[in-house]
Amino acid sequence: TADLRLVQLEKDVLGKNKRYAAKNRQYLQQHEIFALNIISSPGSGKTSLLTATIDALKDQLDINVIEGDQSSQLDAERIRNSGAKAIQINTGKGCHLDAHQVGHAIEDLNPADKGVLFIENVGNLVCPAPFDLGEAYKVVMLSVTEGEDKPLKYPDIFYAADLMIINKTDLLPYVDFNMDKCVEYAKQINPNLIIIELSATKGDGLSEWVQWIKAQLTLKAV
Amino acid sequence: TADLRLVQLEKDVLGKNKRYAAKNRQYLQQHEIFALNIISSPGSGKTSLLTATIDALKDQLDINVIEGDQSSQLDAERIRNSGAKAIQINTGKGCHLDAHQVGHAIEDLNPADKGVLFIENVGNLVCPAPFDLGEAYKVVMLSVTEGEDKPLKYPDIFYAADLMIINKTDLLPYVDFNMDKCVEYAKQINPNLIIIELSATKGDGLSEWVQWIKAQLTLKAV
Ligand SMILES: Nc1nc2c(ncn2[C@@H]2O[C@H](COP(=O)(O)OP(=O)(O)OP(=O)(O)O)[C@@H](O)[C@H]2O)c(=O)[nH]1
Ligand SMILES: Nc1nc2c(ncn2[C@@H]2O[C@H](COP(=O)(O)OP(=O)(O)OP(=O)(O)O)[C@@H](O)[C@H]2O)c(=O)[nH]1
Ligand SMILES: [Mg+2]
Ligand SMILES: [Mg+2]
Ligand SMILES: [Zn+2]
Ligand SMILES: [Zn+2]
Repeated sequence: TADLRLVQLEKDVLGKNKRYAAKNRQYLQQHEIFALNIISSPGSGKTSLLTATIDALKDQLDINVIEGDQSSQLDAERIRNSGAKAIQINTGKGCHLDAHQVGHAIEDLNPADKGVLFIENVGNLVCPAPFDLGEAYKVVMLSVTEGEDKPLKYPDIFYAADLMIINKTDLLPYVDFNMDKCVEYAKQINPNLIIIELSATKGDGLSEWVQWIKAQLTLKAV
Repeated sequence: TADLRLVQLEKDVLGKNKRYAAKNRQYLQQHEIFALNIISSPGSGKTSLLTATIDALKDQLDINVIEGDQSSQLDAERIRNSGAKAIQINTGKGCHLDAHQVGHAIEDLNPADKGVLFIENVGNLVCPAPFDLGEAYKVVMLSVTEGEDKPLKYPDIFYAADLMIINKTDLLPYVDFNMDKCVEYAKQINPNLIIIELSATKGDGLSEWVQWIKAQLTLKAV
């Protein structure tokens, strides 16, 4: 019966999360704040991408960041040092952010209208997949060092994502990574996936990512 | 009340898992099978380490592998191709292996006495930490590409582990990774942690890992 109780409880937890996510989405849309939920394995480069993005956009956009980690303030500190407002959520044993936590963080951030909200999820390629946070889009990041087979082995998150970033392209000369195969596997799982290849620390491909963000903002504004 | 039910259910799930783990441990000790539970982020190099280890030891030891992944048979296939018996567990939405699944896989494997059992967990640096599978030791693997701050950000698994492998040392010239800091952070979380630095694909440091395994086996046999 523990299994039955587990199934029922999971449904309740996801149901509750859906209601909080809807509230977040309504608030964000009302204030024309463009929100992204960024998900990857630990160390794929989420915070590095955000600090590079803040450097590129902070003069044109009001940028707010919610950081999710089991422990430490390290990521929020890196974000603040690059010039954006950040709230750090420590999830303790929690393996993903949920919409309830994100709702409180949005209240604390009190972001200006027409800005951008980046939500960096806990480093985990499995558990964040079913948890809507109220974002406009889910972004999954994979680094070339992790191997091209990941979309086939962790299909749920690649299916749930709208955009895929393949990071650390500067390391391609030193690792055994087949880019074409990786793109093929990702599209096999999710044909609608938009894919951007970049290096967050060296800057290659970063402009394509920045243009994509701007395009979503103008779409919203029109 | 969902939260209270959640806490109670988690206790039941962990309690149930503990009983299955104890059964596994009793079986493994009775048959003098040395079992390791290997945990890391997706793509840190667990399967690569296992294939290299099988190449080094298959002529001296009976090696059995349990592979855990959300989806696909890719890892079990790589293990069989390197010359060891392997069972693939597909966890679907599951983000970690549990002792019940491992117990059935051991039955299917029916490993010879005095052999070795490597259990490669689902690629996840958070959720496997509290789940005892009946192993002799937990091994956490971190690759140099993921960043030296990981022990501070994902403390539970570094605290739960007995041995830490720092993999992909061949990439050190190309990444910004501070080895001394990483070792310092890991020991801060878990002072008893044994740490081995190696490259699973290039072979550097592999002998230290192989010697450690042999040492545990002779300890057992004496
Ligand atoms: N070579 C290279 N290294 C990178 C790149 N992006 C990030 N890194 C490195 O990868 C490591 C992890 O980067 P982070 O930005 O902390 O990764 P993260 O996804 O935020 O990690 P978590 O928050 O723990 O999940 C650090 O050592 C970064 O310097 C890149 O494009 N190329
Ligand atoms: N340069 C380098 N690459 C490595 C090393 N070990 C593994 N890799 C590469 O890292 C990628 C992932 O390796 P895997 O062995 O599949 O990693 P894993 O931990 O088993 O991945 P999951 O099972 O999905 O969690 C592959 O492209 C490997 O070739 C290493 O020591 N050095
Ligand atoms: Mg980060
Ligand atoms: Mg593997
Ligand atoms: Zn989880
Ligand atoms: Zn989990």
